[in-house]
Formats: sequence, C-alpha cells, structure tokens
Amino acid sequence: MRVAFLGPVGTYGEQAALQLIALEGWGDAVLVPQLGIRAVVQALARGDCDAAVVPVENSVEGGVTACLDALWEHPDLAVVRALVLPVRHALVGSGSLEGISEVLSHPQALAQCSQWLAEHLPRALQLPTSSTADAARMVAGSRFRGAIASRQAAVEHGLQVLAYPVNDVPGNCTRFLLLRRGPRAHEGPLASLAFSLHSNQPGALLEALGCFARRGLNMSRIESRPSKREMGEYIFFVDLELPQAAGVLEGALEELGPLCEHLALFGAYPITNQP
Amino acid sequence: MRVAFLGPVGTYGEQAALQLIALEGWGDAVLVPQLGIRAVVQALARGDCDAAVVPVENSVEGGVTACLDALWEHPDLAVVRALVLPVRHALVGSGSLEGISEVLSHPQALAQCSQWLAEHLPRALQLPTSSTADAARMVAGSRFRGAIASRQAAVEHGLQVLAYPVNDVPGNCTRFLLLRRGPRAHEGPLASLAFSLHSNQPGALLEALGCFARRGLNMSRIESRPSKREMGEYIFFVDLELPQAAGVLEGALEELGPLCEHLALFGAYPITNQP
Repeated sequence: MRVAFLGPVGTYGEQAALQLIALEGWGDAVLVPQLGIRAVVQALARGDCDAAVVPVENSVEGGVTACLDALWEHPDLAVVRALVLPVRHALVGSGSLEGISEVLSHPQALAQCSQWLAEHLPRALQLPTSSTADAARMVAGSRFRGAIASRQAAVEHGLQVLAYPVNDVPGNCTRFLLLRRGPRAHEGPLASLAFSLHSNQPGALLEALGCFARRGLNMSRIESRPSKREMGEYIFFVDLELPQAAGVLEGALEELGPLCEHLALFGAYPITNQP
Repeated sequence: MRVAFLGPVGTYGEQAALQLIALEGWGDAVLVPQLGIRAVVQALARGDCDAAVVPVENSVEGGVTACLDALWEHPDLAVVRALVLPVRHALVGSGSLEGISEVLSHPQALAQCSQWLAEHLPRALQLPTSSTADAARMVAGSRFRGAIASRQAAVEHGLQVLAYPVNDVPGNCTRFLLLRRGPRAHEGPLASLAFSLHSNQPGALLEALGCFARRGLNMSRIESRPSKREMGEYIFFVDLELPQAAGVLEGALEELGPLCEHLALFGAYPITNQP
C-alpha cells in the first residue's frame, strides 16, 4: 500500500495519513509525500499510489477547494473514510521563549496564531515557510528562532515546546478524506455528493433539497461554488447523514437525478473524530 | 477617508481597494495596509479607519472564512459594496525566463500556478513569501530570481513581465467586500445574511430556504460552517439576488426570524464585476 499525502513529513497531513492507515488496519503502508493537493490526487488517479489523504475543510496548509474539484473531475476515485483532526499549534524551538526574535511558519498558521504572537512576541519578525514542518526543520539549533508547528514536529526535529497551544481559536479542526480508486459506496454513516441544477431559478435548489428532507436525511454540510464552465452555474457540495436502513440514499439520488445537469456521489463512508 | 486593506502595498487586496474607492467616488481616500484579515476588520471596528476592504471568496492571500466570522461577530459593521476581481498571475523579474532558478511567491499563489511551473520551470526552486507583493519586491535586481505576482506589482517594483498569465485555471477570481461602520441596508441588488437554526433536524434548513423561494429570491450562494460555540450547530451564509421592489427582503427576514437561533443581515449592496 502506497499512500499519497500533502507533504512534507511532519505536517498535519502526515498525522492524518498515519491515523487513517491505522483505522484501515494497513500494516504495510508506505507514506509518499506530494507537493500540493493536485499532485496528491494525481498520484492516486495515475496509479502511482493506492490511496490518498487530502484535507477537505479548514486546512492549515490550504488547497481545500482543490480537493472537491478533484473529486468532481475524477469519477474513478471514491471517498472511503474521513477523519477530523484537531489542529493545535505549538511554538517550538531550541532556545527559550524570551530569546525568540524570529517566528517561522506557513503564512496560514502564522495567521491562525496572530493574536497570540501580538501578545507574547510583539517584536518578533514573522517569516513565511512552505509548511509548518519546514519551519520546524529550519529553526533546529537556533536560539533566537522559533517555529509554529505541531508538537509532533518538535519531537521529529528534536525541538522543545516553548508554548502550547498558541492558536487563537481553541476548537480549530481540519477534516481529511481517504481516497481510493474504485466504485463509490452507497452505504455508510456519511455520504458526500455534488450536483449542478438544470435551472438556476428560485426554488430549484429547494426542490433538490426536498429529495433529502422527505427521507429524513439531515445535511451536515452544504456549500455552493461557481462552476468554472459557465457564469451563474453553481455546483452544490452536500454531506448527508445516512440511516442504517439500506436503499435510502439510492431513492434520494433517483429522485434528484432528473433535476440535475450533473450529479456525482463521492462515496458513503465512516467518519472518526479524533479527540 | 482612511481605508484599511490586507497589505502590503502591491497585493490584489490593494488593487481591489483602489477600485472600490473609485466606485464610491472618494477622492481623498488614504490606503492603510494591515497584516491579516482580523487586523483589517479591527481597524474599522475600533474607528482607526473609516472603511475596510476584505476578500470573501477564493482569495490568493487567504483568510477568507475569517471575514464571514468577523461580520457575524461585529453587528455594527455593514457590507456596502462588492467587487469581483480577476486574479491573473504573472511571472515577473529583472532577468530572462530562461535564467530563472528560483521562484518566489505566497504559497497559495505558487499552488495556483503549480502546473505552469512544472511545465516551464521544472527545475526552479519554489520559495514562499508572505504575499505576492513581497515576492515582487524581493526579486528586484536579481537575474536568477522570479516572482509570481500581479502585473501591477511588476510596474511598482520596476520589473519585467516574463510570462502572463501563469495561473493554471483561467477564470480565477476573488470577491472583495467594502465594509463600513453603520446600519446594514435592506435594499440593493445583492443581500448577504447568516443564520443558525433552532433545530438541526432534517427539513429545518428546507423550511428556512422556503422563506426565500416563495418570494422568488434566488440564492447565488449558500455555505454552511460549523459554529464555534457548539458541535453540530451550523451557521448558514446566504447571498440573495434582490428585486427592485421594496420590502421583499424584510418580509423574508420576518418569516425566517422565528426559525432562527441567530439571524444577521450583513447588508444589501451593489456588486461590480471587473472584466
């Protein structure tokens, strides 16, 4: 099993990949870091890897919408599992908190800690890096440089945790998906799907959502995004909580189909919340 | 007029601010660059600035969800205008395309050009910066360094455009909002609002959306996001296309109110698409 993830080693993406591999029980999995979400998905689509782990919501390392677009474009890929990972940043380094005059991290991670940095290190220079893991690697051995990264990254680079947590919002989480090639399942606790409608008229979306509501299917997420093909055309991305009973999703999709220009189920799958 | 924007000078945020100021007809406006979306909104909320320009969708420089959260938290701020800006990146520098061995830019901008870079500069090292404008500043005078930035940034730093456009998706756009302190208007071509529902049951959202559909109000956007207060509670962000007739939005909000835990109108405002 070769598993592609958004690298480098030591990112939250790697943590998610390790946990998803454990949940699947793949003892022999090899992690294959990739540069960018597009590369992660392509490694799987091309057959270079057997599975891929991608962030789909609120990621530090970015590129979240790229994942939904990739699923829309690659009907041969399926979502087989989801993991919600708490993203708690630490300030890590080789010196002491008082001595830090430069803080390195991915710009998104620096932004997520901006209040903490303004309060505790107001004079420190903030320097951007490609990832939180890169930042941790670059501060090793320096007394005046610190990195915003995971505590795991501190362990990997022999650094000390100078402060934790340092993110401004305590409940910061990222959702990751495990993708594989193959058919998309119709049964599981959660289903993800996307559709674009024939008509952009008022009430068209309401009619579509009625297919779910009438079957007692709760939407835990809905998001519209402009389609890249045509102005004014929207793709709706929906997550549905499925009941144990079989065939409920099929019924909803059968009713929804005639209303849609395009309709794609990405899979039905279990979701694990890491405490 | 002091107008806060996501700095530094030379970013797409500055371009948007300049155009929004022109649309408002503010001859005497002074641009005040800020570090991070949160700082932009706070500069306005605190009264340091009279207006603020924030990216709300598909931004290069990130922090888009922070803008919706800020509007939800600051009921004293109103959306008064929107601008959709095409985001077309250029490779800029002081040397020739053939001589480039290092490409600098914000990681999000590097990601948006990853295919182009893989084809045209496969051996170039990619180096992250805090913004596209910073990248342009840092490559000035170097023969072997190039930056991914706007063509405007090339002009400001005396650089040449070595290739344009270099973003992988041609129709790349960012939507910016102009915010001010004061009451939120109920009439205008587009209205933005947010609500959380009393009940998370199937059909609750459908009932809420019915308030818009029955009045012929088309939703040009819908997005759900987990509320930070409670697991399983969602905030829905909706954009509505309003008719010329007065009072239609008020009627919809009156009907929607009793279904909601919280309901906030962010404003009704004109939107301009920059060609």
